[in-house]
Amino acid sequence: MRKTGHFRVLEKWRDELYPVYGKDRELLFTVERAASPLLGIVSYGVHMTAYVRTEDGEIKIWIPRRAKTKQTYGGMLDNAVAGGISAGESAFESLVRECKEEASLEEGLVRSRAKACGTVTYFYIRDERAGGETRLLQPECQYVYDLELPEDVVPKPGDDEVEEFYLWSVEEVQAALARAEFKPNCALVMLDFFIRHGILTSENERDYIEINARVHRRLEFPTL
Amino acid sequence: MRKTGHFRVLEKWRDELYPVYGKDRELLFTVERAASPLLGIVSYGVHMTAYVRTEDGEIKIWIPRRAKTKQTYGGMLDNAVAGGISAGESAFESLVRECKEEASLEEGLVRSRAKACGTVTYFYIRDERAGGETRLLQPECQYVYDLELPEDVVPKPGDDEVEEFYLWSVEEVQAALARAEFKPNCALVMLDFFIRHGILTSENERDYIEINARVHRRLEFPTL
Repeated sequence: MRKTGHFRVLEKWRDELYPVYGKDRELLFTVERAASPLLGIVSYGVHMTAYVRTEDGEIKIWIPRRAKTKQTYGGMLDNAVAGGISAGESAFESLVRECKEEASLEEGLVRSRAKACGTVTYFYIRDERAGGETRLLQPECQYVYDLELPEDVVPKPGDDEVEEFYLWSVEEVQAALARAEFKPNCALVMLDFFIRHGILTSENERDYIEINARVHRRLEFPTL
Repeated sequence: MRKTGHFRVLEKWRDELYPVYGKDRELLFTVERAASPLLGIVSYGVHMTAYVRTEDGEIKIWIPRRAKTKQTYGGMLDNAVAGGISAGESAFESLVRECKEEASLEEGLVRSRAKACGTVTYFYIRDERAGGETRLLQPECQYVYDLELPEDVVPKPGDDEVEEFYLWSVEEVQAALARAEFKPNCALVMLDFFIRHGILTSENERDYIEINARVHRRLEFPTL
């Protein structure tokens, strides 16, 4: 299939295997990451929000901008660390690896301070920003982590996938969300963060109940 | 209907009105709280977990035991503060009121420290422990709050609905959950707390993804 050039998503071959689980959560087979959207299988990743609490208690959030040259969602805003989980890897070990690669965060810091905070589950509707075929529906589950950083630790791009990191106030992040500058699934993770931290509440967000149910969608397929 | 005695749930008349919303979230009408399970309408409440972080970072949780004389779920374990939201009341104002009534927690403390952390949404299947008719299905939405208390603040029963408060380690709470000693919806709130605080993780809980989706069920009815 890759050689025939029929599917554009296969042009971005990753040489990375994604697991496919059966109804008893047994591993059925693995599949090349780039091909997973064609098959509609559930893919798994980790997304971490890194933030700072200033002396007066204000939360500021580290937000990276994706490199403009990145094939998918180039130039859009992202979560501090995000990546897919390969076959055989646990969520937390995947996070530790991505923290090093994407934000130059040291292993010891991540192991002692990163906190698992749940999952977001949703369907991705791939559009032109994702590259390749559009309108492919991909069910995804992201394991969500928070990392409260000391003020003197500054995330730095560890590879060429991130252009730079901003340290933004909640209001700045909200304004960027409203401008649709975030990669869509990263926007979901920000909403979940705002809900868990009492920033979005039933008093200030009309769609509070519905948002919280939708970011935790029950997927109709076998999951891990 | 109350006078005919046909429905046992109506024996526990509360003189408290619950709101019923339409598809544009407009208030359609209000209904006596005791009658709401008969109509299958979505009911709304607040549930708060009060906890202490000890000097070495350990979380201990304040757990009340319901009075044995309580008509519903007597003698079972509960969340620190929990109550229904009446028509016209906001979630947070309801919380402030219940904190005073149920746990003798001062208004100033609650307003400055209680943190909105999302919702749990689910169907309640009423059984004999709920009193009245069994197998009634009631869709519910609970607004979830965390309150980290200083070690010297001790919740005290403010009415005769709570027998006593325990300050339990996470392991003690987990053991009580495993013994099914919690009122069922309070057990859900504890699971959500454990997920948000990195106590339940994908590494130690096989049903992690499914639990997190199920405690945030999308209700098939109009909600607020």
